[in-house]
Amino acid sequence: MPQPIRVTVWNEFLHEKTSDVVRKIYPKGIHGAIIEGLRESLGDGVKVRAATLEEPEHGLSPKVLEQTDVLLWWGHAAHGKVRDAVVERIHRRVLDGMGLLALHSAHLSKIFVKLMGTTCMLRWREAAERERLWIVDPSHPIVEGFEDEYFELEHTEMYGEHFDIPPPEELILISWFEGGEVFRSGCTFRRGKGKIFYFRPGHETFPIYHDNNVRRIIANGVKWAAPGGSFYSGKGRNIKKPLSPIAGGHDVDESLHR
Amino acid sequence: MPQPIRVTVWNEFLHEKTSDVVRKIYPKGIHGAIIEGLRESLGDGVKVRAATLEEPEHGLSPKVLEQTDVLLWWGHAAHGKVRDAVVERIHRRVLDGMGLLALHSAHLSKIFVKLMGTTCMLRWREAAERERLWIVDPSHPIVEGFEDEYFELEHTEMYGEHFDIPPPEELILISWFEGGEVFRSGCTFRRGKGKIFYFRPGHETFPIYHDNNVRRIIANGVKWAAPGGSFYSGKGRNIKKPLSPIAGGHDVDESLHR
Amino acid sequence: MPQPIRVTVWNEFLHEKTSDVVRKIYPKGIHGAIIEGLRESLGDGVKVRAATLEEPEHGLSPKVLEQTDVLLWWGHAAHGKVRDAVVERIHRRVLDGMGLLALHSAHLSKIFVKLMGTTCMLRWREAAERERLWIVDPSHPIVEGFEDEYFELEHTEMYGEHFDIPPPEELILISWFEGGEVFRSGCTFRRGKGKIFYFRPGHETFPIYHDNNVRRIIANGVKWAAPGGSFYSGKGRNIKKPLSPIAGGHDVDESLHR
Amino acid sequence: MPQPIRVTVWNEFLHEKTSDVVRKIYPKGIHGAIIEGLRESLGDGVKVRAATLEEPEHGLSPKVLEQTDVLLWWGHAAHGKVRDAVVERIHRRVLDGMGLLALHSAHLSKIFVKLMGTTCMLRWREAAERERLWIVDPSHPIVEGFEDEYFELEHTEMYGEHFDIPPPEELILISWFEGGEVFRSGCTFRRGKGKIFYFRPGHETFPIYHDNNVRRIIANGVKWAAPGGSFYSGKGRNIKKPLSPIAGGHDVDESLHR
Repeated sequence: MPQPIRVTVWNEFLHEKTSDVVRKIYPKGIHGAIIEGLRESLGDGVKVRAATLEEPEHGLSPKVLEQTDVLLWWGHAAHGKVRDAVVERIHRRVLDGMGLLALHSAHLSKIFVKLMGTTCMLRWREAAERERLWIVDPSHPIVEGFEDEYFELEHTEMYGEHFDIPPPEELILISWFEGGEVFRSGCTFRRGKGKIFYFRPGHETFPIYHDNNVRRIIANGVKWAAPGGSFYSGKGRNIKKPLSPIAGGHDVDESLHR
Repeated sequence: MPQPIRVTVWNEFLHEKTSDVVRKIYPKGIHGAIIEGLRESLGDGVKVRAATLEEPEHGLSPKVLEQTDVLLWWGHAAHGKVRDAVVERIHRRVLDGMGLLALHSAHLSKIFVKLMGTTCMLRWREAAERERLWIVDPSHPIVEGFEDEYFELEHTEMYGEHFDIPPPEELILISWFEGGEVFRSGCTFRRGKGKIFYFRPGHETFPIYHDNNVRRIIANGVKWAAPGGSFYSGKGRNIKKPLSPIAGGHDVDESLHR
Repeated sequence: MPQPIRVTVWNEFLHEKTSDVVRKIYPKGIHGAIIEGLRESLGDGVKVRAATLEEPEHGLSPKVLEQTDVLLWWGHAAHGKVRDAVVERIHRRVLDGMGLLALHSAHLSKIFVKLMGTTCMLRWREAAERERLWIVDPSHPIVEGFEDEYFELEHTEMYGEHFDIPPPEELILISWFEGGEVFRSGCTFRRGKGKIFYFRPGHETFPIYHDNNVRRIIANGVKWAAPGGSFYSGKGRNIKKPLSPIAGGHDVDESLHR
Repeated sequence: MPQPIRVTVWNEFLHEKTSDVVRKIYPKGIHGAIIEGLRESLGDGVKVRAATLEEPEHGLSPKVLEQTDVLLWWGHAAHGKVRDAVVERIHRRVLDGMGLLALHSAHLSKIFVKLMGTTCMLRWREAAERERLWIVDPSHPIVEGFEDEYFELEHTEMYGEHFDIPPPEELILISWFEGGEVFRSGCTFRRGKGKIFYFRPGHETFPIYHDNNVRRIIANGVKWAAPGGSFYSGKGRNIKKPLSPIAGGHDVDESLHR
């Protein structure tokens, strides 16, 4: 029997402390709702813990990260408060194979921006409008089990294009918004040995993480992003001895080089 | 008649000052050889200048960058000496549309690494071995004019896979090395509105930038990377008024949000 | 001065003969409107001709195709009447480097389906609804000159996802439709040495090809799809003599092979 | 417990009947060696059967295909003998979600060529030369378990670039050949709902399918290509009733349309 996927759900966990509206929707925190969804969908297939901004090291010590297969990230109001040293540590772990799910406003998190290399900015509007997410890659494991061409969320914050990310390697979902915009809402990226899934839905004042379709996508995303693959080196390797013979070869002045 | 493409060739320009070997190959500096090649290929189609590490602001003042359509980058020994503020400035200009050609050891330049989000590390060996560059996208303007399936360089430094970059959007050239490795030697990326071309060949102790095929690729790359396209915003845009009418729409507690 | 791009605009040209509505919108045929747009935008940069279904060989003799740099295709009601031999001929020319712009209902043309390898089917509705095309790759030459994040068409036929095409190499435009769907409306593909651009807007009963933004995209598409690049072989090549020496090498029983 | 993946290994099965050399290497046929490898690697995780050219319907009746999750294809000398009706049937099943592994000379099989839309031609040489396969996507499940940056095959037929395929969606392996060529040896494609993996190694006169690394890649490929995902329609869908209300909307003359 395969080992459970070790998941850490990171939540900024600020709105829930200061706003009655948010606390009413997410009494156990946004992370609590996400964790509940993962346990429902994946059962023994996952071992989940939470981490939050105000814990020491934001709850992401080297040991916690070492024991994390997939990290979920939710942040909104306090991206700037995440310490750079912790961001570096996460970055290294992603390159080494840890999966990352960047949720909703995590598009502006330091870790996502660092991995993308772009501004990750977008259009947005809060008008509680309808969103309809269209599946444009029906072969993908992240949409496993969906029996229609789309699913809907009744009241959402709008995110619109142009979303300033690198062209995603896989584009799985495109959102339609009632107010007139579209958005690439489900995008995957590979960086180093790590797999990254950006998933748009989610907000602190809408009960998005109680929605069954959203929970299913997140659960599928965790399975997809779990580490795998082959040897990876993020280090330079000076291979002095050729693998195959070199005919001739000029003298090389090694003094010039590292 | 179209305006000439304004090109800035940036060279670290250190090896040429300290090594007789390098100075003999590149008496006018590596930048001098690259500029000569661009002028030969593109004539009045380009307006070229040089910039180097030891100039004030590394020769890359805001004004110079503002007047640069395509920036070529050659660095090797002193990546760490390039000031972060200048890197930020270049990064912003790339996102705003300036083309970037990262040449050879520029794979570890701060600007390239920042744009990629990965380590950009690789295997390497200096044994003056043969490299054969195979064209894998014959439709691409960067290989305009090549009449064979490959071209060769007799003595080169080897760079080998795994090259730790994001999957390139376009893969144009793959190198074969005598000693046994392969390498994705011609790769394109889009970041923001900017077009980026990584081109592997080049070294300070081999006369790579005197080679006609290498010069042709660089000239084609400059033309490909020249700015174009549409409106780009690297800023968040709060669009309060929907473009199309929203039916109903719940009350939104704006106090929660920026 | 560069040679003009030789463009052939192919139109099924049936609706215009049988319907007063269509003839009123396109008195010179759909091809006539497209040609007018190309001449306005590109002037001496193009040399344009038309070809239609009911001409001998559908107007696409080997000689015509040989003299065509970019082929535009508009068909709707009579895809099945296009002869397979002509489709083969076009296919070969695309692989050899001729650009192809597949317009609107050309998604089901034999040539496009053959190049894609999928069904190319989609959702559709005729309700004269609003379409808003969002630019998701502002760096691309196909959106050269657009000064906003989107453009609109007031009354259109809807095409919706899932559009059954291979993942496009470049995704440039995504449409929003009033009635609730989204669509990947500007997609590029490379096949052999040929560049292919699928562009959604267009219909026989809406004046889409009189729209300035649509005309600009088509003109930009023609420039982008014009032939270029390097040597291309669509043939097998048995290279008996290695380029580099092979150590040892077992006896090979050639009798087994072609 | 998950259901086993139902695999059909298709082999042309001609060389083995006519050549002592081939029969000695593959006494149970090439399919026999592949099946042996799959059973070793995947055990109860797969249910494997064989199908061959000279069986009725080439062993690929509608019922067999209906019961196949992943089809492996090996053919070389008799691509032209595979009946078009069977190719159509396979094509439809791939679009509907059946995985396809195209092995070695299957690059010229009718089904692979039809799915790609290009000639799929390449350079080739039979000189029993060394091949070294470099992993360029260490995150990919197809290279699960490889602990080095490459693996080697001592004596192989060479396949070289340019390989005339569409740009692969994922490029996992690049081969180096002793005689001087490179090749994109592990490539994935999505068509409809089906996942396709092209894997280069393999030949009738070399014992490639007895190699443990090759067997591991094929087993990983079967797992990766197994069906999944969401609802898929390869049919046109006329959605007369909008999902969201349309303001106004012109009269549409339905008589013009299907």
